[in-house]
Amino acid sequence: MITITTDFSSREHYAGVLKGVIKSYGDIDVVDITNDVNPFDILHGAYILLNIIGYFPPDTIHVMVIDPGVGTSRKGVMARLERGYFVGPNNGLLTFVKHMVKEIYEIVIPSDVSKTFHGRDVFVPVAAKMALGIWPENLRPLPKESIVSLRVKEPQIVKNAIIATIIHIDSFGNVITNIPDDFVKFTPGEEIFLNYHGIHKCIFRETYGEGSEGELIMLINSENFLEISMNRGRADIFLKANKMDELVIELP
Amino acid sequence: MITITTDFSSREHYAGVLKGVIKSYGDIDVVDITNDVNPFDILHGAYILLNIIGYFPPDTIHVMVIDPGVGTSRKGVMARLERGYFVGPNNGLLTFVKHMVKEIYEIVIPSDVSKTFHGRDVFVPVAAKMALGIWPENLRPLPKESIVSLRVKEPQIVKNAIIATIIHIDSFGNVITNIPDDFVKFTPGEEIFLNYHGIHKCIFRETYGEGSEGELIMLINSENFLEISMNRGRADIFLKANKMDELVIELP
Amino acid sequence: MITITTDFSSREHYAGVLKGVIKSYGDIDVVDITNDVNPFDILHGAYILLNIIGYFPPDTIHVMVIDPGVGTSRKGVMARLERGYFVGPNNGLLTFVKHMVKEIYEIVIPSDVSKTFHGRDVFVPVAAKMALGIWPENLRPLPKESIVSLRVKEPQIVKNAIIATIIHIDSFGNVITNIPDDFVKFTPGEEIFLNYHGIHKCIFRETYGEGSEGELIMLINSENFLEISMNRGRADIFLKANKMDELVIELP
Repeated sequence: MITITTDFSSREHYAGVLKGVIKSYGDIDVVDITNDVNPFDILHGAYILLNIIGYFPPDTIHVMVIDPGVGTSRKGVMARLERGYFVGPNNGLLTFVKHMVKEIYEIVIPSDVSKTFHGRDVFVPVAAKMALGIWPENLRPLPKESIVSLRVKEPQIVKNAIIATIIHIDSFGNVITNIPDDFVKFTPGEEIFLNYHGIHKCIFRETYGEGSEGELIMLINSENFLEISMNRGRADIFLKANKMDELVIELP
Repeated sequence: MITITTDFSSREHYAGVLKGVIKSYGDIDVVDITNDVNPFDILHGAYILLNIIGYFPPDTIHVMVIDPGVGTSRKGVMARLERGYFVGPNNGLLTFVKHMVKEIYEIVIPSDVSKTFHGRDVFVPVAAKMALGIWPENLRPLPKESIVSLRVKEPQIVKNAIIATIIHIDSFGNVITNIPDDFVKFTPGEEIFLNYHGIHKCIFRETYGEGSEGELIMLINSENFLEISMNRGRADIFLKANKMDELVIELP
Repeated sequence: MITITTDFSSREHYAGVLKGVIKSYGDIDVVDITNDVNPFDILHGAYILLNIIGYFPPDTIHVMVIDPGVGTSRKGVMARLERGYFVGPNNGLLTFVKHMVKEIYEIVIPSDVSKTFHGRDVFVPVAAKMALGIWPENLRPLPKESIVSLRVKEPQIVKNAIIATIIHIDSFGNVITNIPDDFVKFTPGEEIFLNYHGIHKCIFRETYGEGSEGELIMLINSENFLEISMNRGRADIFLKANKMDELVIELP
């Protein structure tokens, strides 16, 4: 089984072409994750990969094509993870699953393919062969150190505060930090002060629907990250939030 | 077979995760209806459910996750309909198919699941088991009276006019009322006066393409509701239409 | 196997209904190409068809429903192409694959179907039967001359310049002309002057990622058309580009 994540836009036919190529290899199940990642938003792709692999069958092949450097010297790779496989460019998409990589291979680009659509001509053929149990002939082992990572600082405790990074803003306007649930324990109902574009009082909650409309809340989201949300509103707009910004959470 | 309708946004990975969980249960066919319902737009979900069940195989399981109250006291339910099954929150999504419900069950929430993503942790596991022919152990019968409905007034004839409600505005800008086709008979070419943000002359037509560009028309749409449309234009913008507004159609 | 391309919007349930109808006929594989073609944008549909047929298995049936004239005198057709089949309205969707049509049939509209949703009631039933190997009884041969085409001028060399037409603008802002790759040869690094809303210097490149950010480039895209692109920017906005406009490329 193959999943597809791209920035091709669901308005275009490019993701359809990937599926056509896969189906031309055989009766392979394909699931679209999304084709509407913002153009070139590798961070979003990295966040998606982290959050889907645990929910798909263990031999699933995740193809990701967010690839501003297509046709240049950036390498294409196939990585065997603790669970599942990754196929795509080595440009930071593996950032959050680096520790789960068991083996990594360069995908040698055949000389006769396009320089502008490796998703179709390089990555999907590798994934389709693997889904059929065929080892692609154009894989060459790489050292794990060659994995390219985005520079996202780990969350840190400095004095009485956590300094963290916004790693995603979702379509509901939820502002997701890179603070994992085991990093800090808050109690439901607790008041927490957020220092980011001003000082904001948040209430720690267990669900989105509690509290009053428009209230700023913090909760551990379904992917076990601390996120800032607004009851039936948009926290991102209220906070003027940007991905990759740092924010400070005051500890009691 | 399972269908998925959510407000997760097709830009996010959440619907992909639902599909991963389903595929982890077995080789189950999944069809996305849409993942781009506006956030929390239960009315849209209810309208979709009404309009899809007749076109899917009779044992299809329709999972709908438009769920602003996730993790609060709102109940999750599985409903057996005259045709197909519904799995999702009991928050109004069953409004337009209430009369088709044969049996309804509360889905008892396992204690170890997330409070923020019941789509993944509660609803899809129930649907996947049912698709495999396994009766989920956490279903508890409910009386039919417990179905939660949105308050949409039935269309009414008052003096020489129909008072109706806008139940949907589609992406073409068509303004769809809750007047069913057997409620009133108009003749193709007939002039009808609409009283809604002013008085507007409409022509009753059988198809979108007849008449002159920019003409306001009424027709019975493919789902057998009276709708107001504009030939190659957008009726919603012209009429400043809002969902749940009442409008008045003058009878001859 | 069936592909679906429509302007129904992925926010609506209409494409889901098509899939429900197909699945009601049998276990048929369905791939969405896109349901977000701009309303009535037949040119986009025609461009998509040209660019997908080569990548799907040869017996794939491509259903396209971009159909402003539904219910009027425009005919529905099934066309057997050199590779694959087309099912949809005869309104220009076949423009770019006209030369690949081997046979074409009118789909006789059953009298009892809706006048507003032939995708559901007419086209998909034909496609589903064909996918199951059943010849639809309501096909009537047409002469090939009856194919309706959009009026897109072939690119022309006039004096020292190519006059061409913009046939597509994609979601990355790439401006795609109807100049095929064998029409003219440029050398990587060559300077080319574009005359379209002013005179612009472009560099001919082999990939999107070469050169400096914001640089206007020309390249042969993955579908073998000459396109104008901007390194990590949007050529369409910079050039104020519109589909169907003519532009002039000065030859050296």
